[in-house]
Amino acid sequence: MSSSRPVLFLVSADSGCVRVDAEAPHVSVMDLGVTRGDGIFETISVCGGRAQALEPHLDRFVRSARLLDLPDPDLDLYRQAVFAAIDAHDDVAELYIKTVMTRGVEGAGVPTGWVYAAEAADFAGARTEGIRVVTLDRGLRHDVAQTSPWLLQGAKTLSYAVNRAALREAERRDADDVIFTSSDGFVLEGPTSNVILRRGDTLVTPRTDQGILPGTTQASVFEFAQAKGMKTEYAVVPIAELSSADALWLVSSVRQAVPINRLDGVERSIDVEFTARMTAYLLGRRD
Amino acid sequence: MSSSRPVLFLVSADSGCVRVDAEAPHVSVMDLGVTRGDGIFETISVCGGRAQALEPHLDRFVRSARLLDLPDPDLDLYRQAVFAAIDAHDDVAELYIKTVMTRGVEGAGVPTGWVYAAEAADFAGARTEGIRVVTLDRGLRHDVAQTSPWLLQGAKTLSYAVNRAALREAERRDADDVIFTSSDGFVLEGPTSNVILRRGDTLVTPRTDQGILPGTTQASVFEFAQAKGMKTEYAVVPIAELSSADALWLVSSVRQAVPINRLDGVERSIDVEFTARMTAYLLGRRD
Repeated sequence: MSSSRPVLFLVSADSGCVRVDAEAPHVSVMDLGVTRGDGIFETISVCGGRAQALEPHLDRFVRSARLLDLPDPDLDLYRQAVFAAIDAHDDVAELYIKTVMTRGVEGAGVPTGWVYAAEAADFAGARTEGIRVVTLDRGLRHDVAQTSPWLLQGAKTLSYAVNRAALREAERRDADDVIFTSSDGFVLEGPTSNVILRRGDTLVTPRTDQGILPGTTQASVFEFAQAKGMKTEYAVVPIAELSSADALWLVSSVRQAVPINRLDGVERSIDVEFTARMTAYLLGRRD
Repeated sequence: MSSSRPVLFLVSADSGCVRVDAEAPHVSVMDLGVTRGDGIFETISVCGGRAQALEPHLDRFVRSARLLDLPDPDLDLYRQAVFAAIDAHDDVAELYIKTVMTRGVEGAGVPTGWVYAAEAADFAGARTEGIRVVTLDRGLRHDVAQTSPWLLQGAKTLSYAVNRAALREAERRDADDVIFTSSDGFVLEGPTSNVILRRGDTLVTPRTDQGILPGTTQASVFEFAQAKGMKTEYAVVPIAELSSADALWLVSSVRQAVPINRLDGVERSIDVEFTARMTAYLLGRRD
């Protein structure tokens, strides 16, 4: 897809930010990030050389660390590595940056950290034509983040095998992506995105106290809508409200906002013009 | 704990089994094993130089691969690496071996594999004096493996952050380990073990169609019990049956069988003599 080279900086308390060869191995087979998926990450869009929603991403990175009883990541170091990675990367239209912190090598008690930057895939088609989505049960009640915090709902962890399996299930159902639902009948989130519904002049997204990641892109979409005089709402959304909504999107970093053109096999019309304006706003963000 | 050096063999279709420096990094930051916890593993005990229940472990490794839509691991290569790792390691009383296969570096479509051997921790105290256990909700119904296979219940994946978080919750509750329960009130398994209950002369373990890993050590315990003329049973076990059982154990590779001496803060007597005979049997296994 791209001939530009990815850029990698290791981040550690001892050595600060150190650029290393992104193609070489840098993780031990005994790192708990790989043996247990025991770590956290953020994925950040870079448009026109500027990291979008960097501070909200870093805030969420800290929030995930605390949900996992990890030490707070050193945000000064991560911020420095993000800027250095953008500087070091070829100048392309859209980059993505991944910040990662694992619990480190078993027994060592020192987190492993890095920041990786690479050219983003081309999502122009998905952003304009939309994607096909299926709902899949996540198996958990919508209130489980309150009752059972050890299930880590709402943390952005490296343990994403279920999210990947859900995407393979979507593919088997002739779809591109997934909306997870709770076992008690509520809309949650996508495996790597938030859900936004439009009802008339109101945009609605599921409330984040349901074990949902607070979306940095979703927050930007709400800002965009409010600036247009629309209403925005965080709500507990019964599954049936997906079908009755006027329009649906999945929103996330990098892919930004993509309209849903088919839900569980049922075609849906997409709001081409509104989506185009939303995408222009999102891609135009410079912080 | 130990001065013996761990041993690492990389396993790949291209290069077969290659011994490498276990302390050096061998995993890319773009390996899906670390970015998504997208891979599988087995942990195998080695006593007196012999890998215990090797074939059942390898069978389960294949089963996990299929649950994750991974290619079948090349068992000849993994078997060869296990034997080579045992040969290469210092001769110690108890080793553990980890076999790992990840989905590989994103976009490459080639799994990453390795076999790691290191001296086991000393579990003598836990095996004789027992451990304190708390029950924690896993948030899922007991039948979710049938209804929602994308939740990967019953697969041994690298996405174990929740299992680790549960152990930290146990520690906060002044306990050593966890028994997960289903949201609808049944006993499941430990984060890295199976549960065995004794009722009179019958040993009972939760049925594996409840999203539970089929235990290789649990199977050996059942063989031991049957040889002693005891009955064994796979059952759907309501949580209340934990309190009414005559004795309880968590069983797993490496730590083998450990009796539970306190459950959710309530002291329990342990069957010292029976446990000792079970442990002797388990440690004596030579295949």
